[in-house]
Amino acid sequence: MTKPAGFDPLSVPESNSTSYPMPYAEQARKRWFRRLGDHAGLSHFGVNICRIEPGGRSSERHWHQEQDEFVYILEGEAVLVTDAGEEILRPGMCAGFPAGVANGHHFLNRAEHDLVFLVVGDRTPSEVATYPDIDMHGRTGPDGRMRFTRKDGSPF
Amino acid sequence: MTKPAGFDPLSVPESNSTSYPMPYAEQARKRWFRRLGDHAGLSHFGVNICRIEPGGRSSERHWHQEQDEFVYILEGEAVLVTDAGEEILRPGMCAGFPAGVANGHHFLNRAEHDLVFLVVGDRTPSEVATYPDIDMHGRTGPDGRMRFTRKDGSPF
Repeated sequence: MTKPAGFDPLSVPESNSTSYPMPYAEQARKRWFRRLGDHAGLSHFGVNICRIEPGGRSSERHWHQEQDEFVYILEGEAVLVTDAGEEILRPGMCAGFPAGVANGHHFLNRAEHDLVFLVVGDRTPSEVATYPDIDMHGRTGPDGRMRFTRKDGSPF
Repeated sequence: MTKPAGFDPLSVPESNSTSYPMPYAEQARKRWFRRLGDHAGLSHFGVNICRIEPGGRSSERHWHQEQDEFVYILEGEAVLVTDAGEEILRPGMCAGFPAGVANGHHFLNRAEHDLVFLVVGDRTPSEVATYPDIDMHGRTGPDGRMRFTRKDGSPF
């Protein structure tokens, strides 16, 4: 029998796990994900609800070589940082980051309330993530999981 | 110089164009899309804001062979119809439809106000769309655009 397809995102568990090495892992603890696409059985792209506590950030500033990314703000106030500088995004606003465009981006929560947004990213067998501001580089390993090294390839 | 990445979806033009043949094209006139992903330069998946006027529907009930689909309700009240029957989705609720799962779905607006949702779908070189309730079949042509025929392959 077919089950109903609709669901409440709040029914999906929230996690603040990260594969970042220290000290960046510590910065990521205020960022919580609910993996809605996975919950629905999707595999071609990810759809997450990301909640960032005051003082937190979505990630280190980065851009993707092979994956498009899209963000839609649901609650709170985001400071989006790119090569263009800082811009404020409020609920109902959005932003997209095409694969291969060397414009590092991340979202900061400098407000006193949670920042909540939807984020979509496609899935590719391999990926390279470039971090313009810090000595870190990301590349998928043979198992498809992102591995982080210093920019010269040495381990953390 | 890098331009700001954030934008207001309402700045993106809205269209109710459809490639459905008659009489289904007529049914689709109350459905309006803003192509946010295209606006941001994304090509791997589409992100649209869909607005459905009272009495309208998102599409004929269908399922995709190769493309995942995800919907997040922003405003109004959706009647989601699948093989499980009807279910009501309100703002903040979502639903996902994995590629290849033969569970036709569409969203109806039976309320007195507009229904607005975000819809994400990935892009594949080819695609087959199956319509369980009507004598229509969709398949991408050599130009990558969806072509609709009757189920026996004859033209409308």
